[in-house]
Amino acid sequence: MKDSIKVFAPATVANVACGFDVLGFAVENPGDEVVLTKKSTPGVKITTITGDEGRLTKDADKNTVGVAVSRFLKHLQIDAGIDITLHKKMPLGSGLGSSAASAVAGVFAVNQLLGMPLNQQELLPFAMEGERIACGSAHADNVAPSLLGGFVLIRSYDPLDVIKIPTPANLYSTIIHPQVEVQTKDAREILKKQIPLRDAVTQWGNVGGLIAGLMLSDYQLIGRSMKDVIVEPIRAILIPGFEDVKQAALSAGALGCGISGSGPSIFALSTSEEIAHKVGSEMQKVLNSIQIGSEVYISKINNSGPQILD
Amino acid sequence: MKDSIKVFAPATVANVACGFDVLGFAVENPGDEVVLTKKSTPGVKITTITGDEGRLTKDADKNTVGVAVSRFLKHLQIDAGIDITLHKKMPLGSGLGSSAASAVAGVFAVNQLLGMPLNQQELLPFAMEGERIACGSAHADNVAPSLLGGFVLIRSYDPLDVIKIPTPANLYSTIIHPQVEVQTKDAREILKKQIPLRDAVTQWGNVGGLIAGLMLSDYQLIGRSMKDVIVEPIRAILIPGFEDVKQAALSAGALGCGISGSGPSIFALSTSEEIAHKVGSEMQKVLNSIQIGSEVYISKINNSGPQILD
Repeated sequence: MKDSIKVFAPATVANVACGFDVLGFAVENPGDEVVLTKKSTPGVKITTITGDEGRLTKDADKNTVGVAVSRFLKHLQIDAGIDITLHKKMPLGSGLGSSAASAVAGVFAVNQLLGMPLNQQELLPFAMEGERIACGSAHADNVAPSLLGGFVLIRSYDPLDVIKIPTPANLYSTIIHPQVEVQTKDAREILKKQIPLRDAVTQWGNVGGLIAGLMLSDYQLIGRSMKDVIVEPIRAILIPGFEDVKQAALSAGALGCGISGSGPSIFALSTSEEIAHKVGSEMQKVLNSIQIGSEVYISKINNSGPQILD
Repeated sequence: MKDSIKVFAPATVANVACGFDVLGFAVENPGDEVVLTKKSTPGVKITTITGDEGRLTKDADKNTVGVAVSRFLKHLQIDAGIDITLHKKMPLGSGLGSSAASAVAGVFAVNQLLGMPLNQQELLPFAMEGERIACGSAHADNVAPSLLGGFVLIRSYDPLDVIKIPTPANLYSTIIHPQVEVQTKDAREILKKQIPLRDAVTQWGNVGGLIAGLMLSDYQLIGRSMKDVIVEPIRAILIPGFEDVKQAALSAGALGCGISGSGPSIFALSTSEEIAHKVGSEMQKVLNSIQIGSEVYISKINNSGPQILD
């Protein structure tokens, strides 16, 4: 068995327009990398963090990857020594599941390093504990797709019920990350606690349509279902230029477009890499025109989840 | 071409627990029968209605089947004479889509009689106009499954977007109709206009789970997803003994159980005909114990919709 392992875990788009708090999917880039190394002295230590501009704590009890690895070891009653190097290769606070990717990379790596005592699905609760440290609550809509790959439905939290949804062959994601900051906490607090039944019915019709569209490989149905009448109208005001960026994506041929997680990143789905690139460049033009810098990420839906790099 | 045709159209279970206003499925019995006969004098006439205990009007402009047939003829600008005999073979006001079955039987029959100028999906708007006469609004969650067969998702009403959901091979429906009356109008008026976002999220997680379960042939997922936290808790109070009937169904092995449409009928889904019968008899025992008479209907999911009888 190796003494050291390097693992990549992908960024994720949570909510996916209509599926607030229940849907997410993984992309092929960006994502985070961790290197875990066995040590003789017991305990989990974060030795190095790169790419975070000094914003993340190296305290293993307070950092999402440290907590995820520690909970895993505690659950299995393994008194191991693990040193962690975390390479943030994606923007923090971007709505792309940055903390989830770190936590998933950590638990996937430690499970590999220790000879795979658990299967992939069984790692979920420990990655969720990492999320709890980062976000204050143990959400699964980033962690589950990052860990399992593909599109994931979180049907229920109590008990946890996570379902991997088969997806069609040609589904490409465009993500644009505008360089503005949105706090997840703020994005959650501005939501209304009560919503009209009529809007809720529209929303669950769309959730049903999106799941059916993905499973039937009906791209037009996927597009028609990517509508959020509840959360997007409220959160969009936190993202400068959102409506114009969305319109540019749709005009460029995207099936649908929405806010990634709690934003500020915006995602779109398309049926080819070519369209996905065009969508990205049209979205970026809109942000450029209002003097907002941005990064664009294009990839297929990532169906495999974390990857061992060496 | 024949001058007369007899058609059966099936009863339907709308809502299907979590899918309020967006989901419905068809059964093999009960249902309604119509006989349509071409006449030389133009106009739509309802000559006979049986099985309604005199409760339905024979005025073709006010009866659901008359309106549906008239709208069809008007749309195609066909100046035909059609006599209609309607045999109600299912209880009225039962939550089983009685008016939808009549309207669907009518439009399906007239389309056949005139050499099928329209395909099955194109008949939907005319059957919905029949529903509007009966219910005051043009709902599709009974009409669409009665017309198309199987499980149907109504993703959107404006524009109308109806998706047939593939279903697993072994899915049996038990319906029990307690002899109590619930007015659709009352059942709709007692609903809250505003609902907690938290409950809505639970509900759309379940809608997603039910669609995925049906398409993955995952019977346990179907069962876990058949939960309604929004409508059932309110409507259940209109149906004496509902909670005990539901508990009896689940104890007898049903995957899930809920109110059919706006009630008072209660439905359950099971994985075999044997279990479906046991479920029905256990449900009936509960209603018997509180002196409420009932009819039980058992069938597979009806995947074909209306049928020509001769």
